[in-house]
Amino acid sequence: MPRLRLALSQANPLVGDFDGNIEKIVAAAHEAWNRGSDLLLTGEMAVSGYPIEDLAAQPSFLRAARSAVDALPARLVAEGLGDLVVIVGHPDGPFEPRLLGTSNAPTAIAQNCASVIQGGAIRARYVKHHLPNYSVFDEYRIFVPGDELLVLRIGRNGAAGVDVAVIICEDLWRDGGPVARVLDADAGLLLVLNASPYERDKDEVRLPLVTRRATETDTIVAYVNIVGGQDDLVFDGDSVVVDGDGTILGRAPQFVEHLLVVDVDPAPAGNGDLPANVTRVAVTARSDDPGQLAKDVAVLPDDREQLWNALVLGLRDYVRKNGFRSVILGLSGGIDSSVCAAIAADALGAENVYGISMPSQWSSEGSRTDADDLAERIGLHYSVEAIADLVSPVETQLKLDGVAAENLQARIRGIILMARSNMDGHLVLTTGNKTELAVGYSTIYGDSAGGFAPIKDVPKMLVWELATWRNEHAAANGETPPIPENSITKPPSAELRPDQTDQDTLPPYELLDDILEAYVSKRLGREDIIALGIDRATVEFVCKLVDRSEWKRRQGAIGPKVSGMAFGRDRRLPITSRPAG
Amino acid sequence: MPRLRLALSQANPLVGDFDGNIEKIVAAAHEAWNRGSDLLLTGEMAVSGYPIEDLAAQPSFLRAARSAVDALPARLVAEGLGDLVVIVGHPDGPFEPRLLGTSNAPTAIAQNCASVIQGGAIRARYVKHHLPNYSVFDEYRIFVPGDELLVLRIGRNGAAGVDVAVIICEDLWRDGGPVARVLDADAGLLLVLNASPYERDKDEVRLPLVTRRATETDTIVAYVNIVGGQDDLVFDGDSVVVDGDGTILGRAPQFVEHLLVVDVDPAPAGNGDLPANVTRVAVTARSDDPGQLAKDVAVLPDDREQLWNALVLGLRDYVRKNGFRSVILGLSGGIDSSVCAAIAADALGAENVYGISMPSQWSSEGSRTDADDLAERIGLHYSVEAIADLVSPVETQLKLDGVAAENLQARIRGIILMARSNMDGHLVLTTGNKTELAVGYSTIYGDSAGGFAPIKDVPKMLVWELATWRNEHAAANGETPPIPENSITKPPSAELRPDQTDQDTLPPYELLDDILEAYVSKRLGREDIIALGIDRATVEFVCKLVDRSEWKRRQGAIGPKVSGMAFGRDRRLPITSRPAG
Repeated sequence: MPRLRLALSQANPLVGDFDGNIEKIVAAAHEAWNRGSDLLLTGEMAVSGYPIEDLAAQPSFLRAARSAVDALPARLVAEGLGDLVVIVGHPDGPFEPRLLGTSNAPTAIAQNCASVIQGGAIRARYVKHHLPNYSVFDEYRIFVPGDELLVLRIGRNGAAGVDVAVIICEDLWRDGGPVARVLDADAGLLLVLNASPYERDKDEVRLPLVTRRATETDTIVAYVNIVGGQDDLVFDGDSVVVDGDGTILGRAPQFVEHLLVVDVDPAPAGNGDLPANVTRVAVTARSDDPGQLAKDVAVLPDDREQLWNALVLGLRDYVRKNGFRSVILGLSGGIDSSVCAAIAADALGAENVYGISMPSQWSSEGSRTDADDLAERIGLHYSVEAIADLVSPVETQLKLDGVAAENLQARIRGIILMARSNMDGHLVLTTGNKTELAVGYSTIYGDSAGGFAPIKDVPKMLVWELATWRNEHAAANGETPPIPENSITKPPSAELRPDQTDQDTLPPYELLDDILEAYVSKRLGREDIIALGIDRATVEFVCKLVDRSEWKRRQGAIGPKVSGMAFGRDRRLPITSRPAG
Repeated sequence: MPRLRLALSQANPLVGDFDGNIEKIVAAAHEAWNRGSDLLLTGEMAVSGYPIEDLAAQPSFLRAARSAVDALPARLVAEGLGDLVVIVGHPDGPFEPRLLGTSNAPTAIAQNCASVIQGGAIRARYVKHHLPNYSVFDEYRIFVPGDELLVLRIGRNGAAGVDVAVIICEDLWRDGGPVARVLDADAGLLLVLNASPYERDKDEVRLPLVTRRATETDTIVAYVNIVGGQDDLVFDGDSVVVDGDGTILGRAPQFVEHLLVVDVDPAPAGNGDLPANVTRVAVTARSDDPGQLAKDVAVLPDDREQLWNALVLGLRDYVRKNGFRSVILGLSGGIDSSVCAAIAADALGAENVYGISMPSQWSSEGSRTDADDLAERIGLHYSVEAIADLVSPVETQLKLDGVAAENLQARIRGIILMARSNMDGHLVLTTGNKTELAVGYSTIYGDSAGGFAPIKDVPKMLVWELATWRNEHAAANGETPPIPENSITKPPSAELRPDQTDQDTLPPYELLDDILEAYVSKRLGREDIIALGIDRATVEFVCKLVDRSEWKRRQGAIGPKVSGMAFGRDRRLPITSRPAG
């Protein structure tokens, strides 16, 4: 018989849907109990969804959160689950608003909490200490930090109990603070509630951190993460239980809901004094023998597959959680729209994807054929809408030429997509990649029109890699590769004038993506990049394009952040500025 | 002879334009010296502009700021200004990046500083203690706080010196912290560097605060603010010097650059011990008699005029600082576009304003006449572009009706404005008001298309008030009232179908604006608003419209924040959510 059986609920909440989120918790509690668990642990803010942003400053939102949490203990008893220890993440408040500065808006009136429920009551509460306020996070804006560590002494049948510390997400990442006190408190198990979004290669940072903390604090660490898309974030789950020597005792698969049940044998509680700022509360493990448990250790797929899955889930959840059932996008035969169509089909099923080819007089025969081919491979709804007769009245009446005439074509296409969306209720996808977005190589209100941008955080070179991976993946599974080989291999072109290619205007994409990685992701200055050995004129040209496109990016659709530095709230720069260095 | 003569430089910096901003400081130093001043004080971050947002995380930006500040003492000596005490606001860094969480981006590597220069050297530095992280401010994201108060002992000719404390902006607003130590340190004068944006009625909060602090700390308070538009913020200046009994010793006019020179007679320095965490540095006042000085006390105009001036400056600086010279906008004959045209003409001169009337078959004769009338009253460039022949090919080819056909008209108008912008280089203005933006009563990529939205933070009822004020103001000055009376008095209509008015779809604007004030500005919940006595169905209808329009607002143009709660970074809500309460 294990000392403790833990159930980690890797669930997909919807922000503000307290009823739906509570149902998920109750369902997980049933499954946990039926599988012999002593304790169920949810992700951070599983009751409310995450991030709640300034909803934390709406007293009515916090009242609803409090009602949901306050009703849960009795509900669990009514469901026959009163003996299960249930630890749920949720916001709490409202507290007296801190009225700061001249703002007439209350701010920081909530806390980010974990509540421990057993026997029909809330037995204890932990408040997150470390509030992330960098990258996409604004928790110092909306939360008041806690300063008391919580330790649960979980006893069974009079045997020596286990001391279990509870912390929340950022608390695990920071040295000092509650993590340091876990060791002082001599806990044997550390439970961590998380809402940690996916980023490429983050698993290479997160798992080593969990392992390091297990070693440092001499505990087993149980790390549970939420899963799902929420606006521009995709939570990947990847919940894990790790022993102090780095052994993975259990690991949930990424990007799906999962109840991870794991037996652990932490050291029993000692007789040491309780350090300052630690609260200890006793709860009870179940008395029956839970029986044998099969090991549940998922193996992560390779990086490309993880990224693809993140993009698929980000799109699926945006569509589903916002009440759409189908999407529409323009199919140019190029690589970006082809990859977006394949992501959409994987997310929603091809029967919910509508593609329109919108050829002009400058579209090559090949583009049209490639779009046809893609539509057939994927099996999506496909139609063709030639734009010549819509463009020419405007071009003639307004006497347009040059860039104005090129942009007009893109804007007529935007009008067609939005009109079909208005008529049929599809969500419009805009198919620009991160490289395009960086240098402003798109027409605002034209090809940038749409409610969601599936690949906005994927640089062009990586779009090609993903296309190749997806085709290989299909072939390996005996399926039709979705993306026409020609769309991958041909030179990219916006086809807004005769014989145009992207490289008429932009440096080669290999070089361009390298400069952007340095300037945008690493925040290097122009001179720093030139010092890396890249041609000065090219660096200055590219950096200037990036700076001058800020206003366009501000008006762009959201899309899933999959890198360490996405455009949007991850990178907050003025539009009006004179660049330095 | 006064004990001290202060010069407050209320200047308009450009973010990142270190050379230009330094020239403004040197010019102010010359004028200050020539007018007999002992000390020149700039606004917060006058060297870099404000807010710098994540530029604070770019080491190259911080290196450029440091170079600019480091070169200033020698420059002042070279200009014959070495004896003037000059206190400038600037960022400093880079410090070792705090690498937090999994973010691969450095964060919080700078400080928000005031440096004291005399005799060719930086004599002392103060670092801002309180970092605002609410409303539009994200300073906890980018700055590390200071914890040492600075007191300058300014001596003259061997006479008893004056102890002068220096703090920065938010430090003044918070109880405790450096303000509390000013009293302990027995300072006679408190200098405050500020970058405090305009909000309606903020002068009713700010001046009482300055006065209260003067009383509490038993000092004269000299408060200098920057001026000018920076993206969505408009800094109003309104720099002021206040005595402990509330007497205004000097006050700069709002919304213009100004050097405010004021004589003050603070109590001489005592012999008390220096409290902990206070640094005292000696500097020298000039020895010559500066002569008489006329009082300089501006009187603030009434609220409507202040608001108008804020909107004018916000637009002018966005245009000017981003390298545009002219603007273009659609003129419907309605109140919103008329007010925007009048603001643009006041900001840029009518010769730089281009208006296009774009009538459809649903446009009333009155609309066309009102637009003609407006154009003539203002004297702007005016043309007419009928849209029927551009709309009908699309409508026919795509078989559109209902909302899709209505939106199409707005989108064709957007295409016309963007095409003219592409051809002629005008900045496109989008003329939606705050009420429209709140409920999503606009066509995305249609009438919402544009780079700047002059009245996006002005509710509809206030748009009418402003129009009336502007006309009365013109009449009082013997000028032609710019806005046709008919545009003010007729029922508002989008004219996208026959006999349409806004009130077919929306509640009366008086009621709508009241609900929005409660829901958006005061963050009340639905039930809270119903409890105020407003009809349940109307409240739920309006709140639902607000929630469902979040995705549109995210893609909207920026425009000047003039209220305590503007859409944009002042109100950060998820798109994907289920509303509660």
